[in-house]
Amino acid sequence: MRELHDKIRNEGIVLGEHVLKVDTFLNHQIDPELMMKIGQQFADRFADAAVDKVLTLESSGIAPALMTALVLRTPLLFARKQKSLTLTDNLFVESVYSFTKQQKSDVTVSRKFLSPGEKVLIIDDFLAHGEAAFGMVRIVKAAGAEVAGIGIVIEKSFQDGGRKLREAGFRVESLARIASLSAERIEFIQQAGMPASSQP
Amino acid sequence: MRELHDKIRNEGIVLGEHVLKVDTFLNHQIDPELMMKIGQQFADRFADAAVDKVLTLESSGIAPALMTALVLRTPLLFARKQKSLTLTDNLFVESVYSFTKQQKSDVTVSRKFLSPGEKVLIIDDFLAHGEAAFGMVRIVKAAGAEVAGIGIVIEKSFQDGGRKLREAGFRVESLARIASLSAERIEFIQQAGMPASSQP
Repeated sequence: MRELHDKIRNEGIVLGEHVLKVDTFLNHQIDPELMMKIGQQFADRFADAAVDKVLTLESSGIAPALMTALVLRTPLLFARKQKSLTLTDNLFVESVYSFTKQQKSDVTVSRKFLSPGEKVLIIDDFLAHGEAAFGMVRIVKAAGAEVAGIGIVIEKSFQDGGRKLREAGFRVESLARIASLSAERIEFIQQAGMPASSQP
Repeated sequence: MRELHDKIRNEGIVLGEHVLKVDTFLNHQIDPELMMKIGQQFADRFADAAVDKVLTLESSGIAPALMTALVLRTPLLFARKQKSLTLTDNLFVESVYSFTKQQKSDVTVSRKFLSPGEKVLIIDDFLAHGEAAFGMVRIVKAAGAEVAGIGIVIEKSFQDGGRKLREAGFRVESLARIASLSAERIEFIQQAGMPASSQP
């Protein structure tokens, strides 16, 4: 998605080889019009997936996921992150490790909002090692629902989450795939294999 | 806002005299089309306020605030909640007490995203005692910026946050004002004083 590539090139701040800060438009300050275009792009790419519900993880996933759900005309469900839980009776709970924060947290979804047979589109802002995405996948499966696909705003392709998710058979659509990061240059993987409708 | 009143009456779950659960459309599962209407309603009500930026607090404020910012064509900034911080050099930090969770947390905004003179519209999902709203007000003032107004999706008018904010001189627009909660009935304050354009 060219507009997203430009935004990352112009406003992204590289902090070491693995960390890209995009808090001017995605993670802290948010560009609503860009989020709407991102939502339209995900909706286009998953138009044939008969999505019943969009699932994301608080907080930075909410904006792109909300716009996707608006265009697809489905509800949005956001999983909550909590340190540790005592009452888990009515919740799906999965433990997710954050490499950034170097700690585990519990990711939870109320049981009443996921039903067997539903097709769930998972959206997240970043994909690195795939911990958060696999956590959401486990929640969808625990509900007896089906993963319709995984939509990622920024995939750090030099980390292994994307490969692992694709090898596990999931359809992953990333709007920007970063091949490498350095203070001088952010390299993207050109998505030549994408259908023409997904190119812009 | 009648559609919001209906949604609260039909789907809200009253847990005691003070707690209203609206996790089917606002707090956990989100209704994107309702959020869009809420955003349009806030944008209408604050159309004359020359808003430069919308500010909210993660996570439940993000959806209504994003739609408001989309319609107003401004950036959205979401404050982060954190347990305790060690590095606060580049942050505005305010301590906010949560009556629900009975604990304090630090609410933070990066200094680079608020500038002196900017007109900031504060949006939040709930208003009860006003702790979160006053925390955001203090951040806006610490930046030398100006509070253009405060937009609340659901105000629990039987608690004192709304009164305190209005007495402090802030323009507070709440789309639903709850007079009282009981298992049998949710009573709303009818907003007769609103301009006709804000009635639907």
